[in-house]
Amino acid sequence: MNWLDLISTVEPGKDRSEPLYVQIVNRMRHWIESGKLAENSKLPTNRELATLLNVDRSTIARAFSELGQLGLIESHVGRGTFVRSNKAKTTSSPSSSLISWNDRFSRASQTAFDIMAKQSPAAPISPDMISFAGGLPTEEFYPHSQFEQIVRDVLQSGQSNSMFEYSPAEGHTLLRREVLRHLQQEGIEATDDELLIVSGSQQAIDLVTNVFVDPGDSVLLEDPSYFWAICNFRSRQARCIPVSIDKNGIELNSLENALATHRAKLIYLMPSFQNPTGATLSLERRMRILELAKQYNVPILEDNFVGDLRYDGDPLPTLRALPGGRQYVIHQGTFSKALCPGLRLGWLVAPSEVLSRLLLAKRVSDLSTNSMAQITLAQYLSAGLYGDHLEKVRSAYKNRRDTMLGALSKWFRPTGRGWDARWSKPEGGLFIWLTLPPTLSARELLRFAEKEGVTFSPGDLFFLSGDHKEFVRLCFIQTSEPVIEEGIRRLSLAYEKYLQTIVDVSASTYGALTRTRDQVLI
Amino acid sequence: MNWLDLISTVEPGKDRSEPLYVQIVNRMRHWIESGKLAENSKLPTNRELATLLNVDRSTIARAFSELGQLGLIESHVGRGTFVRSNKAKTTSSPSSSLISWNDRFSRASQTAFDIMAKQSPAAPISPDMISFAGGLPTEEFYPHSQFEQIVRDVLQSGQSNSMFEYSPAEGHTLLRREVLRHLQQEGIEATDDELLIVSGSQQAIDLVTNVFVDPGDSVLLEDPSYFWAICNFRSRQARCIPVSIDKNGIELNSLENALATHRAKLIYLMPSFQNPTGATLSLERRMRILELAKQYNVPILEDNFVGDLRYDGDPLPTLRALPGGRQYVIHQGTFSKALCPGLRLGWLVAPSEVLSRLLLAKRVSDLSTNSMAQITLAQYLSAGLYGDHLEKVRSAYKNRRDTMLGALSKWFRPTGRGWDARWSKPEGGLFIWLTLPPTLSARELLRFAEKEGVTFSPGDLFFLSGDHKEFVRLCFIQTSEPVIEEGIRRLSLAYEKYLQTIVDVSASTYGALTRTRDQVLI
Repeated sequence: MNWLDLISTVEPGKDRSEPLYVQIVNRMRHWIESGKLAENSKLPTNRELATLLNVDRSTIARAFSELGQLGLIESHVGRGTFVRSNKAKTTSSPSSSLISWNDRFSRASQTAFDIMAKQSPAAPISPDMISFAGGLPTEEFYPHSQFEQIVRDVLQSGQSNSMFEYSPAEGHTLLRREVLRHLQQEGIEATDDELLIVSGSQQAIDLVTNVFVDPGDSVLLEDPSYFWAICNFRSRQARCIPVSIDKNGIELNSLENALATHRAKLIYLMPSFQNPTGATLSLERRMRILELAKQYNVPILEDNFVGDLRYDGDPLPTLRALPGGRQYVIHQGTFSKALCPGLRLGWLVAPSEVLSRLLLAKRVSDLSTNSMAQITLAQYLSAGLYGDHLEKVRSAYKNRRDTMLGALSKWFRPTGRGWDARWSKPEGGLFIWLTLPPTLSARELLRFAEKEGVTFSPGDLFFLSGDHKEFVRLCFIQTSEPVIEEGIRRLSLAYEKYLQTIVDVSASTYGALTRTRDQVLI
Repeated sequence: MNWLDLISTVEPGKDRSEPLYVQIVNRMRHWIESGKLAENSKLPTNRELATLLNVDRSTIARAFSELGQLGLIESHVGRGTFVRSNKAKTTSSPSSSLISWNDRFSRASQTAFDIMAKQSPAAPISPDMISFAGGLPTEEFYPHSQFEQIVRDVLQSGQSNSMFEYSPAEGHTLLRREVLRHLQQEGIEATDDELLIVSGSQQAIDLVTNVFVDPGDSVLLEDPSYFWAICNFRSRQARCIPVSIDKNGIELNSLENALATHRAKLIYLMPSFQNPTGATLSLERRMRILELAKQYNVPILEDNFVGDLRYDGDPLPTLRALPGGRQYVIHQGTFSKALCPGLRLGWLVAPSEVLSRLLLAKRVSDLSTNSMAQITLAQYLSAGLYGDHLEKVRSAYKNRRDTMLGALSKWFRPTGRGWDARWSKPEGGLFIWLTLPPTLSARELLRFAEKEGVTFSPGDLFFLSGDHKEFVRLCFIQTSEPVIEEGIRRLSLAYEKYLQTIVDVSASTYGALTRTRDQVLI
């Protein structure tokens, strides 16, 4: 297959009636369906094709994702893109439409689509699969009977109409009072005009993006960071500037450098038990970051999604609670991780001038948050039940973390073969971050792991750029201790099997591995 | 006061260190605080100042809104802008920040702020004030005991964990099934991949905007239209193109003309019992609009917010149910009006290719919708309770509509003085649209009305452009029949008092009225 053929058929500006990517899709579809490109044959990389055709890489990415949608090709991170079938899926939906929708979607939608198109679909989880993927709390701690009692009491009381009415856009009065009290216990003093109740952390991010980010604006993020935050910023056409992190959180030199070279609109940080690495920002760095925010006049969005879940070590003040925090920090928290995610309740604390803008963005996007959930949670908090709950889950999650750390030490014992994995020891939160030797791929490991009955999130999902394939994110809170033990045993088995495909070198496998590695370096 | 003075101090490009509007704010603030501009003195119009200074009207609008925020000036629709106080409010919040936030907000936020800054703050509603403003259902029909029973049953059942977990982004399975069934009863056939559960109608609009509208894109709307839809489109920097309506809904000539002159991304319509006019699109026009959508290849967002609330006349098919609807219509509905708004639950039906984009936008904006509300509502629907509820509220709201129409006929009887009001006779929904003689102002009437103890929404709120000050929106569903009767009596009293200020002409009042009217014609 001579890829230069494409040049003769696809040229920027040659046929203006069709977008470039459509020309590429049509041509490649023809080659695949006609057999000119055989099943399982490997395609050039995005970069190679972009250079060959002298087009933007995003054009190739879009063409690839269309071809992927058609079921014609399939991409595997770290391995490349292959022809999967020589017959395009015909869309079977009766709504299959007359409009050519693809040319009508907004840039926000295209960006979100492109991001998702790069993700491999998650394997369906069978009942005996042990999952360390995701980041969910566990059902055994859900407050069933307490909620039942509260809902019954409220609905039988004289105040029950408010369950059915719009809450104020800023949140239900009762819940606002309880959240302010909760914040105070966490060392955060905030006035009523500095607080907004939101429908979960993701909406908090969405509103902040809405209020601060215009297309082309720069947002600084830890690299790696929270997947859906990256999606949100990118779908608003923000430039996401990566700032590197180590086990003490974001690196100051990297941050200062980014601040000096980009006119940042926002710094997005998870100072405590970061997603995905579990890293916690040291107090020294917290102080210094606030100074930098002041110096460069840039607000910080502090995502405190698991601030309540510290298992040992000294509690650290949030950025919001430190000097300068009240002026420079927009603070977000949620009940999704420590209590339960189905409520979709969280909050934003911000200087009042900013808060009034966030409130307006909230109105424009969904008017207000569900009242029943707000009132039920407010009563739960007001009865002092959350404190007890936190103690209970902290103790359980600490045991689970310790169990996973213990199992890792047992099953991933250093062998001296040069193929040892390393992992983080988080002081709280949900995640352990496992690092494979740099030539290995978490995606490959995942294929073996799923055969053994265990799954996890490959770390490359969370990086802003580059090919970081050697990382594994393990969530330790959602399974009981014996299951964690068994899951890590399975993972180590999978790891051994994966290693055998490399260490037991058949020339061809080793060759493939080297090629893959080389492509990364191109 | 010689306004030309401003020119010597404010010039575009003269001082690049401060945005133009800031220069204008600072200069005018100085004049007001120094007494050079006296309290109660009238300012030139936005248009006059913009011409004088050769700057964009949005710059003046922004300066005015800042000065308004400072409490220095106040605008009254139809009367103009006046100096209100010679002392700026100092912001008393302890969070008052070091960052100059105003220069950091996104265009989305600025636009939303500018829209809201033009609205006069609503008067606080005292307990004896009768409100025909807003568009809320009434508490006496809220399903208290049914919900209590359902929540108790679910929380005591084996399936209660799902109340606390994330629902799938596309909505809880049970609720999806029930909504599809409900849609079928309304004549809408949709497959599972054409449905998305959303957090109320406003989120439906927000997601559709996200998926289709880039800054600068054109959206066609009925003029007047739903206030928060206009805000949403505008805050995404859409160009909102007005299409005129009459009592049979959007006018076809106006629509075709707009389609021919603008490359529209979307047509936003409320075909049944439109907000604010109450108008219903005729079947003939519905058919023709679908043909136009096909001809111009433009999708229609059909907002069916009160489709369930028809009180008489023949039911009309939704646009989605008509030929071509499946291909060209994105259909949204909600439980907020017919059942209760506090649930924040609604749906979107769209061709599957579009639905998958809407689903992605949903994930990016808030991951998923509150589970407790979804499950409770699903059980409510599945028990067949919604049908009974609809019958009950339809009958009650029909009586209320008839009561308001009767009271209007009684209290706004034609007098032959040339000052007669007219009003719509809606076949369903929430609103009656009252039209004053064209020289009168609903905002002025509102001032008299609130003194009499009745309030309503001035119609100018809902228009896209121009000065439509003679319209009044009356919501008839939220008060009982005797209260409606009394409210309309008070309104007619207010109207008489307002008329007296005009008909009993003292030269000065009459002069003021003429001036106001003239300014409209500039």
